[in-house]
Amino acid sequence: MNVNEQLNEYAQMTEEALGKYIPSTECLQKSVIEAARYSLSAGGKRIRPALVMEFCRVCGGEPETALPIACAIEMMHTFSLIHDDLPCMDNDDLRRGKPSCHKAFGEATALLAGDAFAIMPFEIIAKAGLKKTISAEAALKISQMLAELAGFGGMIGGQTIDLENENKKPPVSEILEMYRMKTGALLEFCCKAGCIAAGAGAEKQLPAGSFGQRLGLAFQITDDILDITSDEKTLGKPIGSDKENGKYTYVSAVGIEKAKERVKTLTAQAKDLLTEFSDTEFLLGLADALAERSN
Amino acid sequence: MNVNEQLNEYAQMTEEALGKYIPSTECLQKSVIEAARYSLSAGGKRIRPALVMEFCRVCGGEPETALPIACAIEMMHTFSLIHDDLPCMDNDDLRRGKPSCHKAFGEATALLAGDAFAIMPFEIIAKAGLKKTISAEAALKISQMLAELAGFGGMIGGQTIDLENENKKPPVSEILEMYRMKTGALLEFCCKAGCIAAGAGAEKQLPAGSFGQRLGLAFQITDDILDITSDEKTLGKPIGSDKENGKYTYVSAVGIEKAKERVKTLTAQAKDLLTEFSDTEFLLGLADALAERSN
Repeated sequence: MNVNEQLNEYAQMTEEALGKYIPSTECLQKSVIEAARYSLSAGGKRIRPALVMEFCRVCGGEPETALPIACAIEMMHTFSLIHDDLPCMDNDDLRRGKPSCHKAFGEATALLAGDAFAIMPFEIIAKAGLKKTISAEAALKISQMLAELAGFGGMIGGQTIDLENENKKPPVSEILEMYRMKTGALLEFCCKAGCIAAGAGAEKQLPAGSFGQRLGLAFQITDDILDITSDEKTLGKPIGSDKENGKYTYVSAVGIEKAKERVKTLTAQAKDLLTEFSDTEFLLGLADALAERSN
Repeated sequence: MNVNEQLNEYAQMTEEALGKYIPSTECLQKSVIEAARYSLSAGGKRIRPALVMEFCRVCGGEPETALPIACAIEMMHTFSLIHDDLPCMDNDDLRRGKPSCHKAFGEATALLAGDAFAIMPFEIIAKAGLKKTISAEAALKISQMLAELAGFGGMIGGQTIDLENENKKPPVSEILEMYRMKTGALLEFCCKAGCIAAGAGAEKQLPAGSFGQRLGLAFQITDDILDITSDEKTLGKPIGSDKENGKYTYVSAVGIEKAKERVKTLTAQAKDLLTEFSDTEFLLGLADALAERSN
């Protein structure tokens, strides 16, 4: 199976499981549930769930064991996208070629749908621990780690720095610190959580987390590059949004060629970290595919 | 010790513990941390933490055992206040007599501070389980329950219905269902979580949860009454906001006198549920104090 086929297989497992978590709309609060379902099924590549399940597998676990965590992280990611698109944040009307959540459902409903997806991941992880899909201790560790890597010191902290830096020219070190928190933290979570779900110890969690961090940095820099070099149709949203929003990116700081070099270096470093694991064909291929993506 | 003294003692324990959870502002993302700290220390009555710790105590546990959960629920409550005040929601400029979070820190930072407080409670609960302050199973149950009662079927669901009902005249049954979710759910959580922290079973959790639900309904109806009968100085925010926001409340539907009767009935029902517990002087007094409050 090549990288795309394996990614699709994980994506299908994720879609099916995600659908079961969203409550029925046969209730008074159906608007928030419809908005949540709309954004969750907007057709991302489901890279995060794939990382969770694959790291569980390369640590000797069944990918299905990590499926609840895969769904949890995809919800957390969707929360961040919904809130990021809001008028007071990036004010994006389009997401993956479709109207963003607040454009389709209104700002208040989008806010609440995002809120619900910041919370539901913890319900899913707790249930996995209570049902013994994973051990109680693994569920608590994963829950704590997700909250830390999504919170003040992780994704939300990174989004704050991103806002603070608007119309400024921060030093490259601060830009990279911001990327580490905003994008790297959740990818670090995915890789480490997969290991924990499989019952693996620190000797696997640490290189897995570093792999996720480097992949996340490369991912964010590639996003910056594509915002300049891609086109609206391929990207699913207008290009040039960073400049328009006064965002001084890594590419603004070092130029496209050096940024492309950095993506290559980070990808090579990430791949090197996989020597701690065996049967890593998919992860190696995914790292390359993400560095070479066009959207 | 009378009700207010005991409430103050619990509030002091909570303030001190909350302060330790908020990270240092010696970092690039200090604005979101300052905004979060501002809203968390805005001086609420800390009723929710008191309920958590007191139910732990009346189930035979130490109040301190439940302190992490008390802090977690106060953060979740603060998240809901910050997001509720946002321009796309109730658009309130004042909260407890001070500028609301987005007035003081800007909309984007307030959004992110609220987001962080939707997530951090789960970090605190998971840590309490990992450190064995409470059992791993109790931590997972409490985490699951908090997510459920704050999410689509609880607080966020209730806020959605509240929005949907703007400028409409929903039937009384729908208004009460909305209150049950919007306000009752988190109070139900507090009372049940205190029991779980003490290791008590369903025979305690069920009456405790019903007590919380009735207290919550009475609390919300009292809020509606005070929005008409109080004054800005006493209430800490402008009165008449429900009418201005097109909100058709329980008071709009049945009138002030019948609403006051309902508060009395709900409070009496709540107090009756305490016969399952002993040493309930504080809880009985708190129920009365909440029904008779002026802000």
